[in-house]
Amino acid sequence: MEPQENGKQLDGPTNPMVTPLLNDLYQFTMAYAYWKANKHNERSVFDLYFRKNPFGGEYTVFAGLEECIKFLANFKLSDEEIDFVRHCLPGSEEAFCEYLRGLDCSGVEVYAIPEGSVVFPKVPLMRVEGPVGVVQLLETPFLNLVNFASLVATNAARHRFVAGKSKSLLEFGARRAQGPDGAISASKYCYLGGFDATSNVAAGKLFGIPLRGTHSHAFVSSFMSTDEIVDKVLHSSDGKTTCEDFVSLVQTWLTKIQYSPSLRGIFSETNQSELVAFTSYALAFPKAFLALVDTYDVMKSGIPNFCAVALALNDFGYKALGIRLDSGDLAYLSTEVRNFFCTVERELKVPGFGKMIITASNDLNEETIDALNKQGHEVDAFGIGTYLVTCYAQAALGCVFKLVEINNQPRIKLSEDVTKVSIPCKKRSYRLYGKEGYPLVDIMTGETEPPPKVGERLLCRHPFNESKRAYVVPQRVEELLKCYWRGNADEAREELPPLKEIRDRCIKQLENMRPDHMRRLNPTPYKVSVSAKLYDFIHFLWLNEAPVGELQ
Amino acid sequence: MEPQENGKQLDGPTNPMVTPLLNDLYQFTMAYAYWKANKHNERSVFDLYFRKNPFGGEYTVFAGLEECIKFLANFKLSDEEIDFVRHCLPGSEEAFCEYLRGLDCSGVEVYAIPEGSVVFPKVPLMRVEGPVGVVQLLETPFLNLVNFASLVATNAARHRFVAGKSKSLLEFGARRAQGPDGAISASKYCYLGGFDATSNVAAGKLFGIPLRGTHSHAFVSSFMSTDEIVDKVLHSSDGKTTCEDFVSLVQTWLTKIQYSPSLRGIFSETNQSELVAFTSYALAFPKAFLALVDTYDVMKSGIPNFCAVALALNDFGYKALGIRLDSGDLAYLSTEVRNFFCTVERELKVPGFGKMIITASNDLNEETIDALNKQGHEVDAFGIGTYLVTCYAQAALGCVFKLVEINNQPRIKLSEDVTKVSIPCKKRSYRLYGKEGYPLVDIMTGETEPPPKVGERLLCRHPFNESKRAYVVPQRVEELLKCYWRGNADEAREELPPLKEIRDRCIKQLENMRPDHMRRLNPTPYKVSVSAKLYDFIHFLWLNEAPVGELQ
Repeated sequence: MEPQENGKQLDGPTNPMVTPLLNDLYQFTMAYAYWKANKHNERSVFDLYFRKNPFGGEYTVFAGLEECIKFLANFKLSDEEIDFVRHCLPGSEEAFCEYLRGLDCSGVEVYAIPEGSVVFPKVPLMRVEGPVGVVQLLETPFLNLVNFASLVATNAARHRFVAGKSKSLLEFGARRAQGPDGAISASKYCYLGGFDATSNVAAGKLFGIPLRGTHSHAFVSSFMSTDEIVDKVLHSSDGKTTCEDFVSLVQTWLTKIQYSPSLRGIFSETNQSELVAFTSYALAFPKAFLALVDTYDVMKSGIPNFCAVALALNDFGYKALGIRLDSGDLAYLSTEVRNFFCTVERELKVPGFGKMIITASNDLNEETIDALNKQGHEVDAFGIGTYLVTCYAQAALGCVFKLVEINNQPRIKLSEDVTKVSIPCKKRSYRLYGKEGYPLVDIMTGETEPPPKVGERLLCRHPFNESKRAYVVPQRVEELLKCYWRGNADEAREELPPLKEIRDRCIKQLENMRPDHMRRLNPTPYKVSVSAKLYDFIHFLWLNEAPVGELQ
Repeated sequence: MEPQENGKQLDGPTNPMVTPLLNDLYQFTMAYAYWKANKHNERSVFDLYFRKNPFGGEYTVFAGLEECIKFLANFKLSDEEIDFVRHCLPGSEEAFCEYLRGLDCSGVEVYAIPEGSVVFPKVPLMRVEGPVGVVQLLETPFLNLVNFASLVATNAARHRFVAGKSKSLLEFGARRAQGPDGAISASKYCYLGGFDATSNVAAGKLFGIPLRGTHSHAFVSSFMSTDEIVDKVLHSSDGKTTCEDFVSLVQTWLTKIQYSPSLRGIFSETNQSELVAFTSYALAFPKAFLALVDTYDVMKSGIPNFCAVALALNDFGYKALGIRLDSGDLAYLSTEVRNFFCTVERELKVPGFGKMIITASNDLNEETIDALNKQGHEVDAFGIGTYLVTCYAQAALGCVFKLVEINNQPRIKLSEDVTKVSIPCKKRSYRLYGKEGYPLVDIMTGETEPPPKVGERLLCRHPFNESKRAYVVPQRVEELLKCYWRGNADEAREELPPLKEIRDRCIKQLENMRPDHMRRLNPTPYKVSVSAKLYDFIHFLWLNEAPVGELQ
């Protein structure tokens, strides 16, 4: 990778509202208390990680890193913000404002797993080191930027998994997302997680995501009669001929379909306002005609109307793209529609007509797509909104940011609930690969331990369960944490790759997982471990800190 | 209400990312197709409404209106945005850019129910009228701005309902929210829905919401020994005396509690780093000492340490605020803590000590608060994050935006699913109140029908179910839709009230609902109806538009 220069030239986060004030008040009260105790410059190490994979699965896609680094690179409190903070901290000293004024992330280092990687519980996604005063102020923004990003990217990956590689996946969630930036970040991270396109124009512009969209039911019902079409002229796709009355041509085709021997009887009279709307839309977009066919009745009205317009376009060298279904029994309807298209192709000798795109929308999610697969369907593209972008099945990922070391002293956070005990120490993490090329296990070690070696047997221990351990002989060893921010130092650090590259990494990593970790039903947990040395140290520290109970 | 001047002076939406491009692409393809058909200036009426109350309840709080109006008032596409849109519409004509360049909302009228009102399914929250080309471009942004706002405000109201009026409700969700603006808008709308404060500093600054926050577990474990406290001096609250060694004073109090006859035996040795952290925090905020007491062990360490510091503060005229519990059995712990505080008050003669604030956090939601109520607890304040701000129990509200009239022609959207059939016509809506002052029923009428009159018997019909109807004699009639935007006209329109006023309206309206609509278990649905005349018209139109089936 190319070394990157000092981060000052990095743009800020996508959303200008991401400032140091996007923070819990307690980060500032603590900053003040650290400063009062003259502890604010003590070197601290925090781990950002989650405890449980979302959606009942056994994997997560890590996303949001780029936004964190851009936030960090531009971390600066304005005078107005400082005044506000001061006003929130009753009795705080004026000199604290001086401290805040000088605050930046030049003393901070961030090590992280590359964005778009497949990641697992307990293994730090990011390790943030630096003066405790400022690093504490990164907690809330980093969690905010990583939690939803990783959650929705994972959701997208899960939808891709169930839909299969050959389908087009379109994110249609802007209207139902949790606020404007819920929409824009969902579009970004769904693309990262393997979606093909979005309907969200702002996201298309910001991130270069392909855009999709045609028309709605309102468009169809806004038309009432053919009189509304003033300009009926269509120039052929090669510009050589002209259809003077496209409206009549469509009508002719409609009649022709109606009297075709194999299609006869499927419909009698189609809805006129729908036919006008389709005709009008085709005149606007002859090269990209895709119509929503369920405003009145798919098989009795929408499909014959669509075919009439598509066949008329075909006469002048245009290939219609296809249709969208937004209601009803999608398995049944898509199959019926495909049959109709194939019959048209055969009967009316229009090569390729049977292969037209069938898009389905209407409250789709992992379960409904899985059900469609089981029933059999002819859908080529899924437009997914609400369930995808709001992560309806599980609306939050529980990333946390825990102190693991301060002044070179390892710290542990205890809890009655073992799953909530933190893994202390500044650590390194590795992914070990087996003979078949799949990742076998992630292992965390103390920072100064020698790294695992290819071909050398290594004991991997469950961090908290004494009896769970296994020897592994890795065929490949990948160090997970890479340096993405090294304060003001000019040393090399990882580039922030373009979104497309992050997406490619994500897709490749997902494909390289052992299939049993990925399946929807009862997936096998991927193993996360610590070195024998780190295991012993965790448990030494634990016993040291825990109060001894007294049974009474 | 004061008439407001032409909207040009209104600020834009809170989030600068809310621009006309925060839109589904199909709104622009439709705008182009309308324009191509020369239909773009046809007068259209759209209703924005939802079909089902969220969270299994029977009410919803309407929020997001102010942001919509601010968006509208500043609706303008930049040249760069227009170029991008053009590039997204293959084959579009250059002259369309001219149209987009001139586009604003001067021809649009918006009628809406006041923000913060209690609202019900099917009744339009907003009625948007204007040239179909531009009104269509409002659909996605309006839905985005209203859907989550109303959902999270309703969630907040439901949490308030279960917690009761006397408790403090604090929104702590910034880190788990769906992106930065998921956090900021959650803070805003939770306050609107009845919360008291937020931890989110940005939201505090933007909207004037009270802020709360003290310290985290990391703060506690960042301390190791008393040596870390350099400055041990505390000046008394009246400035008259000085404690030269606050650290020793705390230690003295700890020993005193330890040997108090009634407290003896509850604990032996408390955690030293915790004691140092509390002492240090108290020195930073002597007037606002509130400590997180569960880093090691609440009753064996956190509470005695807290009391020692609080009693030392008390010696110099400061009243500690209280504690926060972030884990464990909150019912049991809060009760134990209250008993301990009361014993300290009694034994050590410190008036008011027993009444200290007990705050609880840790994955709280409606259900856990309800369970706490049933068990009995001593919590004064709830800090609620994840479940509140992500609306975990139901992550999306399904508001829709449907064409109900164009060129003075009523339009209906049919569907196989009766609940999805739209109610056609430009309408008025009224809330009818009964003798006891409760709202009885909402009724929609055609725009030109005479309004319901106080004391006059009126037939209210279910819009789709023939057999459901009732006579009502209203004691009060409230017209629901008020004008919030009237294009460029200088006529009076409703003011956008400050957030605090919207919150007051919300709280008042919630309190004025008949209790059986509000209960958590099996609430009675509130009735939504149409006039007899509108009923007949809906069904006439329906029969007219629906294709007649043929059984084969």
